[in-house]
Formats: sequence, C-alpha cells, structure tokens
Amino acid sequence: MQAVSDGPGWMLRIDEGADLFEALRTFATTHQVRAASIVEGIGMLQTAELGYWNGREYDPHAISVPHELVAMHGSIAEADGAPSLHLHVALGGPDHRIVGGHLLRARVGVLVEAYVRTFPGRVFGRPMDESIGLRKLDLEPGPTR
Amino acid sequence: MQAVSDGPGWMLRIDEGADLFEALRTFATTHQVRAASIVEGIGMLQTAELGYWNGREYDPHAISVPHELVAMHGSIAEADGAPSLHLHVALGGPDHRIVGGHLLRARVGVLVEAYVRTFPGRVFGRPMDESIGLRKLDLEPGPTR
Amino acid sequence: MQAVSDGPGWMLRIDEGADLFEALRTFATTHQVRAASIVEGIGMLQTAELGYWNGREYDPHAISVPHELVAMHGSIAEADGAPSLHLHVALGGPDHRIVGGHLLRARVGVLVEAYVRTFPGRVFGRPMDESIGLRKLDLEPGPTR
Repeated sequence: MQAVSDGPGWMLRIDEGADLFEALRTFATTHQVRAASIVEGIGMLQTAELGYWNGREYDPHAISVPHELVAMHGSIAEADGAPSLHLHVALGGPDHRIVGGHLLRARVGVLVEAYVRTFPGRVFGRPMDESIGLRKLDLEPGPTR
Repeated sequence: MQAVSDGPGWMLRIDEGADLFEALRTFATTHQVRAASIVEGIGMLQTAELGYWNGREYDPHAISVPHELVAMHGSIAEADGAPSLHLHVALGGPDHRIVGGHLLRARVGVLVEAYVRTFPGRVFGRPMDESIGLRKLDLEPGPTR
Repeated sequence: MQAVSDGPGWMLRIDEGADLFEALRTFATTHQVRAASIVEGIGMLQTAELGYWNGREYDPHAISVPHELVAMHGSIAEADGAPSLHLHVALGGPDHRIVGGHLLRARVGVLVEAYVRTFPGRVFGRPMDESIGLRKLDLEPGPTR
C-alpha cells in the first residue's frame, strides 16, 4: 500500500490480494484519521459481498468473479475507539453491467486507487441507532454520546 | 441535518424523510455556497425519480422502492439568484442491480452522507441554453451573461 | 472548455463533441498537472467504449447511443513524459439501466462537468507492470523508475 498526502487530501494505492476494509482501517490508524470522506476509488475487486438494507438487515449478494470497481464512496468515522468504515460500491462485470450497494467485504484484484479527504482535528462518530439497528454517521458527536 | 466544514470542504448528513434537493438548497443558502462540486454521497433513498435526456426532454423513471444510494455527484451553481443543483445518481435495488441517471427528485431514507467541495469567492452560473432547452453550467459567468 | 481553480481543486466544463481523454490531457498539460484524482464527473457521453479486464486484455463494449454520465472517477499520472489517464465510468441508458467499467474512449454529449483534485509538486507515475501487461499507478515513483 502507498499513501501520500497534500494537506487534508490523501491518495492511496491498495495492492492485489489486500482485504479492502483492513487496508483502509490500517490507513486510518497509521495516520490517525478519525473523520474523512472516502471520496472516490477505482480499480478491480477479486471478490466482494454486497448488501441491500431491507429495513431490518442487509440482504447479501456474493460476487465471486473479478469486477471492475467503477465507484467507491463513503466515510471514515470512529466507533468504540476504532476506525468505522461505511462504503458503497458500483461494480462492473464481464458483461459490463453494474451491480452494487452497501459493501460488506471485498478483496482487491490488480489494484485499487482511491482519494480520501480528511477533516483534521475532527472526530466523526458512528453510534448505533437502536430504533433501526444500524450505526449512523454523527458529524458532531458530543462528549456524552 | 448536520454540516461541518474544514476550509472549502463540507461533510453533510441529511436525515430520513428529507427532500434531498430542498436539503441541499438549504445548505447552500445557509452557508452562502454559490459554487461547488457535490463530490460524493451515499446512503439510502426512499423514493426517487430518474431522468434520461432524450435530446428534447427527460424521460422519467419513478423509483418507489427504497434503493441504496451508491453514488451521487454534481454541482451547485446559482441561477436567478437561487441555488441551482445538478445531480446524477446510481441506485442499487433489492436485486443489487443498479439504475441511474439524472436525478429529478428524491426523498432520503435512513440517511444520506455527502461531501461537498466549495469554491469560496466564486459564483458558478447555470444559464439556459435556448438552442437545446437545457441549463448548462458556466464556471465563469460574466456580469453581462 | 472551462477550467477554474481554488488551490488544488479544479472545476472543469468540457463541451459537446470533445474527445474526453484529449480534453483531460490538454487540461493536464496546460496547467502542468502531473498528479491528481479525477474526483467526480457527470453529464452526457455521445459515444463511448467500455472495457472489462479479463486478466489478459480489456473486453471492449461499444456504446453508440447517448448515455447519462452518472459517475466518472480516476487519476492523472505521468508516463513517458505525457499525461496518463485512468478513468472508470458508470453510464445510464435510455432504459435507466447502468453499464460501466474501464473507459477506453469517449465523446462528450451536451457537456461534462468534473472536479479534479491536484497534488501540487508531486508526480504520480504509471509504469508498465510487465508481469500482467498493465500500467499501474505509482504514487511515489523514484528517480530510477
């Protein structure tokens, strides 16, 4: 993995075979990123699992054939003292059609290049909303939350 | 809605039930944003209406089942003294397939998180191009345009 | 084409009929951009050619009907002294379905608006990885590469 920055902007290269979430969590931990937009990412994914939120849980969909990573967007927050990621992706298959949704898991194929925009000095939270059973981004978590 | 900034970068959280265009217009008005890229947005949409420009008008397509908001991109300009939005989206359905295009209208489901990059001191315009019947982004509108 | 900047951020408008790659290369050359994320782009494409990397080459797919440009992401690097682009796109057709993947070529329809985030003072490389026959982004190319 490579990571270079210019002020709050980071360009990343994540290499073949990496667990995408693990790589991004390592990036966040290493550079103390506690609040960021995962602005864009492209490349390929070897395998992935997509989710569709049906109101109670994520309906999963496994991707076992390599797909072009056409779009990746999301955020980095902090939950329970560790980096909390939220990622959505659009994936292009061999027939050039696109599937996508919430990303549950992914392994990088060939490479992923991504741009991340940090908010230095800030901490975004991701507290559990018990009423719906989902963690939701909180841009201004107070000390009591 | 939450909105926090670091220089020209803004992170937004727009809550369930909100009209997405209304929320973004309120953001632009409140913070006097007259020129910006709506860089990325993810979350869910409860309902939406997509458009495909057929050369004369937008062929509409109503989305009445909640969809994952996989990608949202666009711009904020000013037209007739009010914020003018241009948004394109990719939406993931229960079958994990993606539909998308120009966004005509949308209601937020669960939440939408978005990153907006403003161009402070600038005003982007969106004058009507009468020859095609469409408003087009103008990055350097002169006083006479 | 219009291009306005605020620090490392550039907003671009590329006009109908333009070759998208040529326009972005001209932008990079004119403004000496040797390292950047092509953060987002929307608009329309008149024609395009998509590719899916099958492990040996790109399986091509020609798009000959105008499509909504729903998402465009990628990077600008330098290879052999010239701008090297890597672009992935999601395209919405008349039926509002999305196709996408690696972008091999495209002609702009109506307009494309895009946000580019440069890394001033940096040079990203895109050396050929002979083991797989693909150029791969290198964020820290040394003087000997």
